[in-house]
Amino acid sequence: MDTIILTKDDIAEIVNRVGLHQLMDDIINKLRKTFRNFDDELTQVRARDGFSYLTPYPGVLEWMPVMQVDDFAVIKVVSYNPGNPLLYQVPTIISTLSLYNIRTGHLMALTDGTFATALRTGAASAIASEVLANPASEVVGLVGCGAQAVTQLHALSRLFDIKRVLAYDTDKTVLASFSERCRFLDLDIQIVPREELEAEADIICTATSVGLDAGPVIDAVNLKSWVHINAVGSDLPRKIELPLELLKESLVCPDYRAQAVIEGECQQLEPGEIGPELIQLVKNAPEYKAYQMSRTVFDSTGFALEDKAAMQVLLSLAKEVGVGRTLPVESIALDPMDPYSFAREHVGSELTRTATAV
Amino acid sequence: MDTIILTKDDIAEIVNRVGLHQLMDDIINKLRKTFRNFDDELTQVRARDGFSYLTPYPGVLEWMPVMQVDDFAVIKVVSYNPGNPLLYQVPTIISTLSLYNIRTGHLMALTDGTFATALRTGAASAIASEVLANPASEVVGLVGCGAQAVTQLHALSRLFDIKRVLAYDTDKTVLASFSERCRFLDLDIQIVPREELEAEADIICTATSVGLDAGPVIDAVNLKSWVHINAVGSDLPRKIELPLELLKESLVCPDYRAQAVIEGECQQLEPGEIGPELIQLVKNAPEYKAYQMSRTVFDSTGFALEDKAAMQVLLSLAKEVGVGRTLPVESIALDPMDPYSFAREHVGSELTRTATAV
Repeated sequence: MDTIILTKDDIAEIVNRVGLHQLMDDIINKLRKTFRNFDDELTQVRARDGFSYLTPYPGVLEWMPVMQVDDFAVIKVVSYNPGNPLLYQVPTIISTLSLYNIRTGHLMALTDGTFATALRTGAASAIASEVLANPASEVVGLVGCGAQAVTQLHALSRLFDIKRVLAYDTDKTVLASFSERCRFLDLDIQIVPREELEAEADIICTATSVGLDAGPVIDAVNLKSWVHINAVGSDLPRKIELPLELLKESLVCPDYRAQAVIEGECQQLEPGEIGPELIQLVKNAPEYKAYQMSRTVFDSTGFALEDKAAMQVLLSLAKEVGVGRTLPVESIALDPMDPYSFAREHVGSELTRTATAV
Repeated sequence: MDTIILTKDDIAEIVNRVGLHQLMDDIINKLRKTFRNFDDELTQVRARDGFSYLTPYPGVLEWMPVMQVDDFAVIKVVSYNPGNPLLYQVPTIISTLSLYNIRTGHLMALTDGTFATALRTGAASAIASEVLANPASEVVGLVGCGAQAVTQLHALSRLFDIKRVLAYDTDKTVLASFSERCRFLDLDIQIVPREELEAEADIICTATSVGLDAGPVIDAVNLKSWVHINAVGSDLPRKIELPLELLKESLVCPDYRAQAVIEGECQQLEPGEIGPELIQLVKNAPEYKAYQMSRTVFDSTGFALEDKAAMQVLLSLAKEVGVGRTLPVESIALDPMDPYSFAREHVGSELTRTATAV
């Protein structure tokens, strides 16, 4: 019973061999298919749960489980620590993904979840935009230009013909490096005042580390009448990015309602004011075409089903490319009735003597 | 940011070098210390949660998280599939343990949890028995002689001077191999009718795979007046091992009350009928000396604090013995603002060209 482990280098090799664009396309396609085929009799998704703490920064360590009935489960463990870049020079979001055989409980695979989270979060926004945004959208505005903004833009660029990118961030250092970080996309990126971004963008992504009770991060007084907004940043109670008035006049679609009402933009709304979930949008896309010329919001909190899809893509590509290693992590014995037998098998009969001699 | 991974072979090497008895003593001592020093301001323990299913056998895949505030978290993932030995020749319980730095979210270590679970479950019963059982206990009765019975007996043998072991199991094959599996303990093990076991034992451990609504597994009509029972097997709603009348006349102490009322023997009791938790027993052991000559029950459901202690012992011994490997599992980039930079660092500037060429 071995466990497949993909290291950082394995994932880098996948990117190298497959290319970033193909990888993003694979994730978008897998995710769209996952949503389209979703059947709640066959898949159990849990809202994330976790430990939260307030010092020195608000942060969380969370687990996000999903189970395919009679088949497998994926548990993502993900932490959100906005202090990370400054204090430890590591990303705000760090994560791993574990895949379990649901029949035996065996840990089948362990992979990074940080990169997968960034990819699938971008892919989810692209899929929501595909249903809800004006298909002729050419101008993308990014409020918050950190790590998530890179994958938001990357994913959108795979489904829309983007002519201009308008970038805004309260942190000038982050803003200054954004074009370089997105150089591989070969897009026209302009740093603009937020007012200009709001007035010009067909699609806006908010992906900020705004503090608790410190939002919203846009004014929304001069938006296009057809603007579609992917609100990606809110992932904690009391953390919000969009003004209530905007939410009330827009069709607001959460990725996973049970979670969005706790930590997404939906925490600002009454139950009756919340639109269909992303899965419903994808399953019934033609029904929502009518909304493409009005204001819509995708309330993205990130949920386990997306992580499952991303992990499946990574594992499948790892197999294709031939990377990854296997290790016997679980101490599983030949005799299931003897918890010590795995050790005896290993060291032979010497062990018994050593043990009794102690 | 590397992750320490202990494989099955690493754990076997620890057992080989340290010896089973020293290992069990280390776990007992660490667990006793963990309970004694427990401060709920510093440690957050979550009751286990998970996916459950009923076909082809009742089974669960559960996560059990515990956090040391400002320090680290341990998440055990554990499955309970009674069909495993027969269907897949693997143990009923399969598990892994993950250690996270709570500041950054980094996965610091991954180890087996199967062996650790068996060890700490034995250790917890031994510690409860140390407080509640007659200190002169010489006869141990085991109802259910599977994997857990081995570690129950092993742990008890480290704290009590056991003269006779009485073994009972409804499965004759399991029963027949029990003496051989416990040979390293050099104890007088006798296979007896259950009635004899109940009448003779000073300490009884029930560790069965009894079905839902199929318990209890003992009659309890002719027990010693000072018997102490470690009820280890109940770990699902509607799975119980002890008769209600026995519970009502005994001091019943759960390991973790919030969990025991859902899936332990305590699910049979009213709140007022439940005694102190194991942590309280250990913190105030002298207060409970009076119960050593009357009937007591330790309702063991297994909780995350025990797993944390077991993992700490394994990691510390791994360091001492010099086993384990480190792998960079998380795709953490030098530039925390660029989710793709880890791949660029790896493959150099070629990547950008490859990606844009797709």
